[in-house]
Amino acid sequence: MTLTLLFAAGPGTAETYHAPLTEALHAEGLDARIVTEAVPEAVDYILYAPASPLQDFTPYTRTKAVLSLWAGVERIVANPTLTQPLARMVDPSLTRGMVEYVCGHGLRYHLGMDAHIHARPGAWEPVEPPLAPERRVGVMGLGALGRACAEALRDLGFAVSGWSARAKAIEGVTCHHGPDGLKTLLQGSEILVTLLPHTPETETIVNAGTLALLPQGACLINPGRGALIDDDALLAALDNGQIGHATLDVFRTEPLPEAHRYWHHPRVTITPHIAATTRAASAARVLAQNIARVETGQPLLHEVARARGY
Amino acid sequence: MTLTLLFAAGPGTAETYHAPLTEALHAEGLDARIVTEAVPEAVDYILYAPASPLQDFTPYTRTKAVLSLWAGVERIVANPTLTQPLARMVDPSLTRGMVEYVCGHGLRYHLGMDAHIHARPGAWEPVEPPLAPERRVGVMGLGALGRACAEALRDLGFAVSGWSARAKAIEGVTCHHGPDGLKTLLQGSEILVTLLPHTPETETIVNAGTLALLPQGACLINPGRGALIDDDALLAALDNGQIGHATLDVFRTEPLPEAHRYWHHPRVTITPHIAATTRAASAARVLAQNIARVETGQPLLHEVARARGY
Repeated sequence: MTLTLLFAAGPGTAETYHAPLTEALHAEGLDARIVTEAVPEAVDYILYAPASPLQDFTPYTRTKAVLSLWAGVERIVANPTLTQPLARMVDPSLTRGMVEYVCGHGLRYHLGMDAHIHARPGAWEPVEPPLAPERRVGVMGLGALGRACAEALRDLGFAVSGWSARAKAIEGVTCHHGPDGLKTLLQGSEILVTLLPHTPETETIVNAGTLALLPQGACLINPGRGALIDDDALLAALDNGQIGHATLDVFRTEPLPEAHRYWHHPRVTITPHIAATTRAASAARVLAQNIARVETGQPLLHEVARARGY
Repeated sequence: MTLTLLFAAGPGTAETYHAPLTEALHAEGLDARIVTEAVPEAVDYILYAPASPLQDFTPYTRTKAVLSLWAGVERIVANPTLTQPLARMVDPSLTRGMVEYVCGHGLRYHLGMDAHIHARPGAWEPVEPPLAPERRVGVMGLGALGRACAEALRDLGFAVSGWSARAKAIEGVTCHHGPDGLKTLLQGSEILVTLLPHTPETETIVNAGTLALLPQGACLINPGRGALIDDDALLAALDNGQIGHATLDVFRTEPLPEAHRYWHHPRVTITPHIAATTRAASAARVLAQNIARVETGQPLLHEVARARGY
């Protein structure tokens, strides 16, 4: 029987996915049609991004799973009409992109690159920078993305610590958890990377209190979620020198409005939500594989636990 | 019998090395005194940097080896009075520093960081950057430093090729050699890293002809030797867009004079010969270990082959 896959995302997304998804479904031996409109009762799977107008999942009585095209599910997980199983996107290309972004900006801070990029002519001032094993990097959030970044930073030689809500273990990474662990992590992080999901518990987890625990002049990289940060507190910490520099990829409002102080702060670098983008080709394979699992009676991969929100 | 080690370097260097070298000699079980002046006929080993006034090695008839404090030996190797065995410095900390510099600036180019660092307020222009496996990086020179950088770039996921005068093999790196191999390497290098020694054969190996072989807009990272580059040819290639950006750490004259066009070119980043610095602590261990080898009848490590100049 032909499966009906409802593609519910923003304009243009279905077109981007059509060819790679058709190929990936075929490779999994699935007989499926991809549609952007359908009688709700006929839909087997929903492929979803929050830009879709679809907000009421109640009539989709036959739908076996909602597969998010995004890694972050905070804009859908609290929807009370969503009773179907929900899977996050865990795309290996997205993870790779995130690792490259975090390693690149981590090395940029470690090497003090901006001083050279902005150097005045004739400013020949050699300083012996510390080596990576002498540089303490902290990663908040040890899910798929945080773990991959912690491991890559470790492989570059950095002294890496990580923090997660529940205890985790990563070889060569000092792992902390819980409130006491967070304090320890922050006190030892010259470069802090925030890769937590956005949940009620992580909302403004980077605030005046936590920023004050970092070593003076620490640098922040936030490719996670904009709502992790209390923006006023970060700007105050940048102004008083507690934070040396911030590189931010995600914001409460995107695109970040031109009038926002972040754009005008000399020690803030803004990247336009590009740290990790879902790539249609690899994401299509992940979606097709997950559908094939459900169709053959295996559990859905990357299923969201509603209680914790990710 | 107590060995006499003549420390012949620039001002202040002997002081920096005294404590770590004393400790390293002790750890090797060597009975030695470190001096900055001595009767030439009494000197067992010379620890050497080109800033030293010592230029005539003829009277050092008893000296078993000259141990360079620098990785580059072009300022000493052609000295006709130097008949004693000469060892280059191969310092693991220096290699590590070089790897960090090359990976950092390589990722900077790969991620297009400068556009974000210099962004005008409100410039929210997301583009999906390629991932590292789609980025071709070429490394010229596959000695200790070049090989370590090629391997680290490979581990970051880049598509890495390398070139050396004689054939070499590195797992996961496409290795070329000889004149034909150089052409192939250059044609496939969106980011080019130059880590060759300075010899008559490598003098201005980066010139109008070789620069023209690179893909248009390629970026150059030179942490090797200033004399590898024909500066006028590079500036012309930057002006006409053949080269997108250059990051240069080494120059024919250092410090680079303030009037030099490199300082004033918007697409040149200058770092003040900091890519890889010899660290006294780890270099002292390397020196002591090499002396201990000779004293116990083993061959000198990292001995320079005079004929090829490195």
